Amino acid sequence: MEFITGVNRKQTAEISDLLTGAYTGGRAAVNGCIHTVRDMGEVAFVILRKREGLLQCVFEKGKTPFNLRDLKEGAAVEAEGVVSAEARAPGGIELRMDAVRLLSEPAEPMPFAVSKWKLPTTLETNLDNRAIALRNVRERAKFRIQEGIVRGFRDFLYGEGFTEIHTPKIGAKSAEGGANLFRLEYFHRPAVLQQSPQFYKQMMVGVFDRVFETAPVFRAEKHNTKRHLNEYTSLDFEMGYIDGFEDIMAMETGFLQYTMRLLARDYAKELNMLNITLPAADKIPCVRFDTAKRQVAEKYKREIRNPYDLEPEEEALIGQYYKEECGADFVFVTHYPSKKRPFYAMDDPKDPTYTLSFDLLYHGLEITTGGQRIHDYRMLLDKIAARGMETDGMEQYLAVFKHGMPPHGGLGIGLERLTMKLVGEDNVRETTLFPRDLSRLEP
Amino acid sequence: MEFITGVNRKQTAEISDLLTGAYTGGRAAVNGCIHTVRDMGEVAFVILRKREGLLQCVFEKGKTPFNLRDLKEGAAVEAEGVVSAEARAPGGIELRMDAVRLLSEPAEPMPFAVSKWKLPTTLETNLDNRAIALRNVRERAKFRIQEGIVRGFRDFLYGEGFTEIHTPKIGAKSAEGGANLFRLEYFHRPAVLQQSPQFYKQMMVGVFDRVFETAPVFRAEKHNTKRHLNEYTSLDFEMGYIDGFEDIMAMETGFLQYTMRLLARDYAKELNMLNITLPAADKIPCVRFDTAKRQVAEKYKREIRNPYDLEPEEEALIGQYYKEECGADFVFVTHYPSKKRPFYAMDDPKDPTYTLSFDLLYHGLEITTGGQRIHDYRMLLDKIAARGMETDGMEQYLAVFKHGMPPHGGLGIGLERLTMKLVGEDNVRETTLFPRDLSRLEP
Repeated sequence: MEFITGVNRKQTAEISDLLTGAYTGGRAAVNGCIHTVRDMGEVAFVILRKREGLLQCVFEKGKTPFNLRDLKEGAAVEAEGVVSAEARAPGGIELRMDAVRLLSEPAEPMPFAVSKWKLPTTLETNLDNRAIALRNVRERAKFRIQEGIVRGFRDFLYGEGFTEIHTPKIGAKSAEGGANLFRLEYFHRPAVLQQSPQFYKQMMVGVFDRVFETAPVFRAEKHNTKRHLNEYTSLDFEMGYIDGFEDIMAMETGFLQYTMRLLARDYAKELNMLNITLPAADKIPCVRFDTAKRQVAEKYKREIRNPYDLEPEEEALIGQYYKEECGADFVFVTHYPSKKRPFYAMDDPKDPTYTLSFDLLYHGLEITTGGQRIHDYRMLLDKIAARGMETDGMEQYLAVFKHGMPPHGGLGIGLERLTMKLVGEDNVRETTLFPRDLSRLEP
Repeated sequence: MEFITGVNRKQTAEISDLLTGAYTGGRAAVNGCIHTVRDMGEVAFVILRKREGLLQCVFEKGKTPFNLRDLKEGAAVEAEGVVSAEARAPGGIELRMDAVRLLSEPAEPMPFAVSKWKLPTTLETNLDNRAIALRNVRERAKFRIQEGIVRGFRDFLYGEGFTEIHTPKIGAKSAEGGANLFRLEYFHRPAVLQQSPQFYKQMMVGVFDRVFETAPVFRAEKHNTKRHLNEYTSLDFEMGYIDGFEDIMAMETGFLQYTMRLLARDYAKELNMLNITLPAADKIPCVRFDTAKRQVAEKYKREIRNPYDLEPEEEALIGQYYKEECGADFVFVTHYPSKKRPFYAMDDPKDPTYTLSFDLLYHGLEITTGGQRIHDYRMLLDKIAARGMETDGMEQYLAVFKHGMPPHGGLGIGLERLTMKLVGEDNVRETTLFPRDLSRLEP
């Protein structure tokens, strides 16, 4: 009988193995994709690309026993030879090839030069050819940073006693309701795609006290801006037994601190490649919504047009204000007006026209919305009634309050937006693998 | 200016802190939900529930300065008092309350006794009242195990050089096509919900060599069985530079080994509570599809009705056969017939009526489908043509092959099914937080 006993360790080395210097002076076989070929006449440099980076392989005319023309960009090969130190090679190491085995061949040349340092395309062409464009090492590095953010979120929260949950994306009803829902037919019944796991994560606070989810959310918003997507990854958490909504901001600050340390430690190569300076998250200023509005109106001579909401320009100015005043990359803006927050937001008992809620701005862009929620059944029913809302389809959500819920709150972070600000892009599509917007449903 | 500087550490202890014995003989304040109250006359035991378990708090009539009747099941409280060792209490520790602060009160009593060891409801009632039923400590423990599985999957794959990706769930076209797609309107264009991240993870192999995703998938199948869901969490990976599809099985075996160790170490309390014996994954037998079919037909005197597919009963018998023959909990069944596998499956060059693919059976239930994929552009086009399929909408998928792809393969694991088998349930709804099936769209 044949058995599988675990991961197969291979004879071929990884590029990262070579870059440690462990093979220098000896022989190695490595595999990878031909990123580019630079033919210098007597020698040619064949640059192999793998996930860990690039490796310079040297072809010497008359010595290397195969035809250089067989080595096309995009081919997957296994190259064998002697490893030597070479200061001018990427990573300071090169492999002098004496054998090449072709693993797979492309049918056509690349549509554009993915091997250039900066991808020579417009964003439109990049997105139209996304899976090819991402082979550019700087393009893909953004998504390694994105991995680090999600990993930081989860690992930090595991350590703080949170349980990970998986909640359904198809449902009969959604937390915020309204016009921004994608609708579908579910076995002859009307259904929607969830625009947030809000109801579910609150329900699960009654089970695990602290829960999180990292999953897609769907918003049928007709915005066509640089910061909106119709499908994005939401990093959500919800926690019980809080003393106030400050506990939520404190937990988010802890997450940011943890994640910046993780990125600095495990993603240094990508940070370097993208020339990223990590933001300061050691202390994050915290300002009331109405105060922040006044501050930027005064400092930047700006009229307050809508006292109930922040315009994107105002958010940007708040970011600028706190950068100038105290060098802050992040700002918590608190106490948003009740009329602009969903029904489940906890009103401030001192002034119920405001809520115990916050947004986190990163360089002037909202990347998080959070706050304390109502936990008392009757208070929740009263607020639903006061808003003239129906409770149809909300029976299960309401039942958890009927049977007792601790004081709690939580937040949702837009992963692609946070990544965008971190890597210094200004269009959220740059940090979305396959964006979905008003016009883009493919690839 | 006010600043948030990181996680707020609280004065209240956690139940897990008390159970270490660190507080024994001293005072502590803890918060939690009143799981149940057992009134014994002179004393009452108030059992607090939090994520880490249960704590016995003692109320002494005439001594404890508050009314026992105020402590309702489902209330959230903070209790303070002296901590003592008590062999008969859960965890061997109790807290003699001398103060209680009510954090939140329920409006109505529980609909059923969530505090019972075994939840006293049918599965239907459980699912209709899901968020309440999950407050039962054994019910919720299943989802801690589920967390451990996902965590094991990710942590193992990070360690093996995989990059995590987030691919869109709304699309113009899906990998398998066909009738099993949920359809929706996307800004006046027809769209579908992805039934698998197959196309995307293959495209990303050209970028990161090794990728994984843990995300929902959607299948509009009209199956109404104990093992089917219409939305579930799929653990997917895809890896390049493989020598054969055995590398995929080896990686999955590595994942299972890693995860069983993780569960044994970090989820021992839940394993214990659910009386789970972890399966053996040190070596997993591997048998050809046609051989396995013949083996069970012979041993169990069963006629082979369909030579191209495995009936659920046959899968169960294969599980039984390998349990009996070599004590195996898992079996890899390989070389499925080409006509039953999708177009992108790599046919066996030795006999193209079979594919280089596999299923993993766990106690006779399929929990994984995987295999090697076609990486050659022309071979892929030929197979698409031979099946009479259209390439409309597949241009981006096909482009990655046109421009070069390494030999690769991957798999998808149904998280809820794997959890179901691991915790010994026989209906996949038992291990799904909020199941979606033919009749269930709520809660």
